[in-house]
Amino acid sequence: MLSSFKRLLIGRPLKSTALGEQKLNIFKALAILSSDALSSVAYGTEQILIVLSTISVIAFWYSVPIAAGVLFLLAALIVSYRQIIYSYPHGGGAYIVSKENLGEKAGLIAGGSLLVDYILTVAVSISAGTAAITSAIPTLHQHTVLIACILVVFITILNLRGLTESATILAYPVYLFVVAIFLLIGVGVYKISTGNVSPTVHHAPIGAPVQGITLFLLLRAFASGCSALTGVEAISNAIPNFKDPAPKNAAKTLILMGSLLALLFAGITFLAYYYGIAPSRDETVVSLIAKETFGRNYLYFFIQGTTAVILVLAANTGYSAFPLLAFSLAKDKYMPRMFTIRGDRLGYSNGIVSLGAASILLIIASQGKTEHLIPLYAVGVFIPFTLSQTGMIVKWFRERPAGWLAKLSANLVGALITLTVLLIFFITKFGQVWFVVIFLPLIVLLFLRINKHYEAVGEQLRIYPEHPAIPIEGNVIIVPVAGITKVVENSINYAKSLTDQIFAVYVSFDREDEKRFEEKWEKWQPDVRLVTLQSHYRSVLQPLSKFIDTVEHKASENNYQVTVLIPQFITKKSWHNILHNQSSLLIRAYLIFKKKVIVATLPYHLKK
Amino acid sequence: MLSSFKRLLIGRPLKSTALGEQKLNIFKALAILSSDALSSVAYGTEQILIVLSTISVIAFWYSVPIAAGVLFLLAALIVSYRQIIYSYPHGGGAYIVSKENLGEKAGLIAGGSLLVDYILTVAVSISAGTAAITSAIPTLHQHTVLIACILVVFITILNLRGLTESATILAYPVYLFVVAIFLLIGVGVYKISTGNVSPTVHHAPIGAPVQGITLFLLLRAFASGCSALTGVEAISNAIPNFKDPAPKNAAKTLILMGSLLALLFAGITFLAYYYGIAPSRDETVVSLIAKETFGRNYLYFFIQGTTAVILVLAANTGYSAFPLLAFSLAKDKYMPRMFTIRGDRLGYSNGIVSLGAASILLIIASQGKTEHLIPLYAVGVFIPFTLSQTGMIVKWFRERPAGWLAKLSANLVGALITLTVLLIFFITKFGQVWFVVIFLPLIVLLFLRINKHYEAVGEQLRIYPEHPAIPIEGNVIIVPVAGITKVVENSINYAKSLTDQIFAVYVSFDREDEKRFEEKWEKWQPDVRLVTLQSHYRSVLQPLSKFIDTVEHKASENNYQVTVLIPQFITKKSWHNILHNQSSLLIRAYLIFKKKVIVATLPYHLKK
Repeated sequence: MLSSFKRLLIGRPLKSTALGEQKLNIFKALAILSSDALSSVAYGTEQILIVLSTISVIAFWYSVPIAAGVLFLLAALIVSYRQIIYSYPHGGGAYIVSKENLGEKAGLIAGGSLLVDYILTVAVSISAGTAAITSAIPTLHQHTVLIACILVVFITILNLRGLTESATILAYPVYLFVVAIFLLIGVGVYKISTGNVSPTVHHAPIGAPVQGITLFLLLRAFASGCSALTGVEAISNAIPNFKDPAPKNAAKTLILMGSLLALLFAGITFLAYYYGIAPSRDETVVSLIAKETFGRNYLYFFIQGTTAVILVLAANTGYSAFPLLAFSLAKDKYMPRMFTIRGDRLGYSNGIVSLGAASILLIIASQGKTEHLIPLYAVGVFIPFTLSQTGMIVKWFRERPAGWLAKLSANLVGALITLTVLLIFFITKFGQVWFVVIFLPLIVLLFLRINKHYEAVGEQLRIYPEHPAIPIEGNVIIVPVAGITKVVENSINYAKSLTDQIFAVYVSFDREDEKRFEEKWEKWQPDVRLVTLQSHYRSVLQPLSKFIDTVEHKASENNYQVTVLIPQFITKKSWHNILHNQSSLLIRAYLIFKKKVIVATLPYHLKK
Repeated sequence: MLSSFKRLLIGRPLKSTALGEQKLNIFKALAILSSDALSSVAYGTEQILIVLSTISVIAFWYSVPIAAGVLFLLAALIVSYRQIIYSYPHGGGAYIVSKENLGEKAGLIAGGSLLVDYILTVAVSISAGTAAITSAIPTLHQHTVLIACILVVFITILNLRGLTESATILAYPVYLFVVAIFLLIGVGVYKISTGNVSPTVHHAPIGAPVQGITLFLLLRAFASGCSALTGVEAISNAIPNFKDPAPKNAAKTLILMGSLLALLFAGITFLAYYYGIAPSRDETVVSLIAKETFGRNYLYFFIQGTTAVILVLAANTGYSAFPLLAFSLAKDKYMPRMFTIRGDRLGYSNGIVSLGAASILLIIASQGKTEHLIPLYAVGVFIPFTLSQTGMIVKWFRERPAGWLAKLSANLVGALITLTVLLIFFITKFGQVWFVVIFLPLIVLLFLRINKHYEAVGEQLRIYPEHPAIPIEGNVIIVPVAGITKVVENSINYAKSLTDQIFAVYVSFDREDEKRFEEKWEKWQPDVRLVTLQSHYRSVLQPLSKFIDTVEHKASENNYQVTVLIPQFITKKSWHNILHNQSSLLIRAYLIFKKKVIVATLPYHLKK
């Protein structure tokens, strides 16, 4: 029943050979991998304005040069990441680039911060999308956390069903969002150019003097604006998901995404500036612009609706990237092996489920409020940005291919800018991002400890053909018996078929019982040695364990292997289990963990 | 750590031979087994007065003849139970007497209602005791349920430590209570006889006409008064706990208990009548009598304190009786076998713990309020009373020993009276006791189903020496292998030492991998057959299971036994477990439950 429910949720299993079919073309890849970056448009401008609004509305004109700065940074990132895509066609992004060029620890720092970042992507995007929905339908506001959790579960299931299916579902809303925002910008710019703008809007001219403005504040505004760049790295991590030629397709997608993001971000920022929009607690900047442009008609709701949907779907970027990165880390033995296993529908199910669970925890912990998660989210992105750019510099310097100086310069510019942004973050928003300083070293330490364990296991398991294991000379089988029954008969028969060194062991609680049993046994199985053990404290395990130690010691001297044969009742109905002492399970677990004996379980299937 | 905590709580294990030392002398037995019956004095009179108070204070004089009736019933019960003790010196009480003389179902009805009754004993007594404490210290009132649960846990631990130790602790308070109530009665009677009674008290003379009194109401009052008789049967169930000569000591204890109970109940009822005490919601009748006799001085608190303590300790009667009855039922295969096992301190730990847990559930469900539990409790007692008396009648009639007619008459009187009380209960309090009518048949049905299962298992396990099992001709060992490692080497070596029919099975996910592995294997273990299975859906279990079926089918035709050898990593630290696929556990569980193969586990102890 459970299994047919699973089938209903995620579909029938797919053959491994179906893997090729799941690869992405540019159209679908852009939808899947860009929704995070593009959806940043919904809050990027707003983050800048929120900081500037602490001075005065006149300061809002600074949003234009700050946005220009963010766009410049975007361009630098796109150029750098394009180089990374061609240099690392098998994907892995910041983690692999940093590891190969800067060493293990840098790679793990990048990997760790990206992993956390993907979880934040899901939590932040879903929370923001939910907020957009609940703003539109205020009666839902009290159920924010529940709605967000349901959305996470929904996206998790879509991803467990498999990549292509989700892509088909997700492609349309993303493109609808792009169309919607272009429509908004187009109509807005048309209205402005024809002088059709409502007379209530005001804006200070660019360059107007602003009282109390400081460099610190401007940097802070710039850093906030950089939240519009989260998600840019997703494509470089997911190259193996592309159709062949994967690197070329990925690079094209990256350029497309960068251009779209630049246009949308620039347009929204310009309209916000021209309309003189001030950020509000109750309504988003995009909503205010749309209301100004269209009024509260169906076009307004189209903008709001597609914005909400793309925010929710942005979470999907995390679902594309997290399982792949976890796979890379697991393949390199820094994360548990289970993250390398493909599920029924060929996705890395363990990564998908872990991501969903972690995001739900974050959403519940933050009560669906994004304010405090966004800075953490942005800083988590800029750490791997910086590390991968630096890694590329080292790579160019080492390999010096044709035209390496130009390539190095591109990455150098990228590295310097992202490092600067990172520093700005730490200087201007330390109170919100200090957590990273504690958490990252801890996760790197965990990665290293996991790695150490796997290496140690590998070493212990390695075969040295020149030192083959000593062959086993013979076998001793110990059969604990509780009476004279069919089960014991089966056990003894089995033991007899394997060896003639058999000990039937009977644990008795008093002398009389012991004598009686010995007599019965002598009649029934005269050719099988019976050992009776006295238990003064009514424990079967203690005397049995002592006896096994003795036999094991003797056996190992002669290269004999000891096997303990334990019968287990398999009841017809599960409630019958309570009617049988589960001592066989206890004894088995104890022996497996404490002794060097092999424990064989003889199942006895009860017919009634 | 857990085990040393257990040691601290319940003490070191005792040898089985220490069992004799734990037996009870009369002094201790009276304390342990009578606290339930004696503590009924604390509420018996009150129950009568509550019913009479629905008419008028003049009706209170009826409490005297009603109490006389209850005392007559008590005498009849003591005489009957004395005969039962001598006829059934091995104990078991109502369950055994009913089963032997009236048949299986009557026995199970008696046993089932007694089991439930013991749980009610604990819940009611502890709740009443807690109420006495919280009346004395009103600030504790809000924690009633918590206090009651802590008391149950405390008594459970005492009982897990062992019978004698609890007896020593419990003997003094019981005797203190007896002394306290005698003191109260003595001083009260002295004051009355010397005319020193406060002039405010009034009582109607016995025989005064009462308006509106009905037979139904008087019967109801009588039935309520019978709650003072709960616990009388405890001694006859616990004869094996007595020092030799057990039946004689038990009979003596029974007479002592009956006399004490009669004196205390008569005294309290007389004082309540003479003082003209009306039951109150805020104060118990005993408390009102004590206040009237002593005023609120230290003697009053002595009475209240000992009453509270004996009520709490009355629960202990349940702890003496429940595990023994559960043992009898389990020995007869009507309850799970685990109730027959003695724990570290020689008590039947499973019974003790089950009783504690069930009582805590009842206390939580009833929120520590006893009003609705008491009628259920009383009716649960009178069902086995009636059944055991009836059983004795049948026994005397069948066996006809010397003087059987007198003995039969005694039990006949007992049976008629208890049946009458039972009928009165069902007629006058059906709204509170209907639950019994539904629950008892269900529990009897459960007993019968458990019995059926054990009988079926016994039949399946029986050995018929004339039909010995067919010996096993040879062995096939299947070794699932995941690579070429030390673990696989150990497994193959072990298999080789047992048989030459070995299949190493490798499940591969693609052709290339399969070919590569086959070549490596050929070089490494040329003399061991390797079977490679293709898994299109990345499941190891499915192809393996199919292969095992094929081998098993072939093997069973030739009387060969199939063994599947599964390696299992035993990690040094428990968190390491998450780093290894637990597929070996899954495969083992699946094979044990679904197949007729023996599953041998080869533990591989990781050193790091």
